[in-house]
Amino acid sequence: MIYTLHYWQGFPGRGEYVRLALEEAGADYKDQSPDWDAGHSDTPSFAPPFLTDGKVTVGQVAAILQYLGPKLGLVAEDERLAIWTHQIQLTIADLVAEAHDSHHPLGPGAYYEDQKQEATVRAKAFRTTRIPKFMDWFEEIAATNRAGDDWLVGRDLSYVDLSLFHTLEGLIHAFPKTMQALKPDYPEVYALAGRVRERPRIAAYLESERRQPFGNGIFRHYPELDA
Amino acid sequence: MIYTLHYWQGFPGRGEYVRLALEEAGADYKDQSPDWDAGHSDTPSFAPPFLTDGKVTVGQVAAILQYLGPKLGLVAEDERLAIWTHQIQLTIADLVAEAHDSHHPLGPGAYYEDQKQEATVRAKAFRTTRIPKFMDWFEEIAATNRAGDDWLVGRDLSYVDLSLFHTLEGLIHAFPKTMQALKPDYPEVYALAGRVRERPRIAAYLESERRQPFGNGIFRHYPELDA
Repeated sequence: MIYTLHYWQGFPGRGEYVRLALEEAGADYKDQSPDWDAGHSDTPSFAPPFLTDGKVTVGQVAAILQYLGPKLGLVAEDERLAIWTHQIQLTIADLVAEAHDSHHPLGPGAYYEDQKQEATVRAKAFRTTRIPKFMDWFEEIAATNRAGDDWLVGRDLSYVDLSLFHTLEGLIHAFPKTMQALKPDYPEVYALAGRVRERPRIAAYLESERRQPFGNGIFRHYPELDA
Repeated sequence: MIYTLHYWQGFPGRGEYVRLALEEAGADYKDQSPDWDAGHSDTPSFAPPFLTDGKVTVGQVAAILQYLGPKLGLVAEDERLAIWTHQIQLTIADLVAEAHDSHHPLGPGAYYEDQKQEATVRAKAFRTTRIPKFMDWFEEIAATNRAGDDWLVGRDLSYVDLSLFHTLEGLIHAFPKTMQALKPDYPEVYALAGRVRERPRIAAYLESERRQPFGNGIFRHYPELDA
């Protein structure tokens, strides 16, 4: 195995962003529960996911994708566009953190059942204010990519297209009513996600057992939070 | 002016992480409220801060610092160490987001006064669980830097040392009692922050009017959240 992805098993979680890049590239990789002793001891990650590649260990999703991008052919060679790609990924990471907090506003240490009331308030703000703000931005940058019509950056698919696809899938899973109502406003984003879904390797992956159900991960479906 | 930092004025906020790098390097820069028309229109940032440098516009603190690092001499030249530096910065960004949510658990759209009860719960979890977890990690990586004793990565100061210093300052401002109690457990982190504070350009900056008071930014002092 060339690459090893260290992450919790049982839900897609943050590891999925790395998994999709490895799958799209047809990379040789192993996907396993975190083995903290596998990495270089002088670069210990704060939390999974982290990736080991020979003597290199990288943590933080955006940093892993930035590391893998050139190796997997999933980022523009142009330096300015590569920075832009990374910036988009970091903004997706912000959205992912807010998606988590929509059901855990009081913090990750307490059960959802013990913060349901607070989650109702936070989820409403997330649905009505934050999701549209992020979606507006994705729609804008998809529409203004000067180099091409199909992807977020440049002419070719890059890792952020995969990440945007998965984020949209997650939001649709967690907030189906909300996303159904918003869909007409975001034709570019939905069309891009559709193109990702049809990539041969991604389509095969989504049909495989390697694609895990959302379950109790970051994107959770609680009907009362989508009311 | 070579660089322009676009950010809200009146509190240090996320812009401070960029400001400290520019100050330490003695860079020629302008610090102003966001001018959304100043950047390249095909890379519009989701939110401030963003930096303009001629034809390049970069948003997201960690991406800005990654861009500036080599230009300002604030990151190791070794690629593996540069990735590690960025990974640390991304983890600091996660801590900063959690510090904000400690007083705004229900989201940024509502006033603190309307979520005081919830903030009490979230802040307690932040103080008792999250701050120690992050501090443990900073202490560990400071202690295990093989190349030197003074800084987080390699032999020389890099932008993450500045960021860790400011984050510690922010935590001490927001949670003075908590941090006073934790201080004995983190000698490496406090010593490193002390070294940053004594850098001639940083010391001069901290004494200047360019250093803004914390006020109602990310790091806020509410005595009831530090109880």
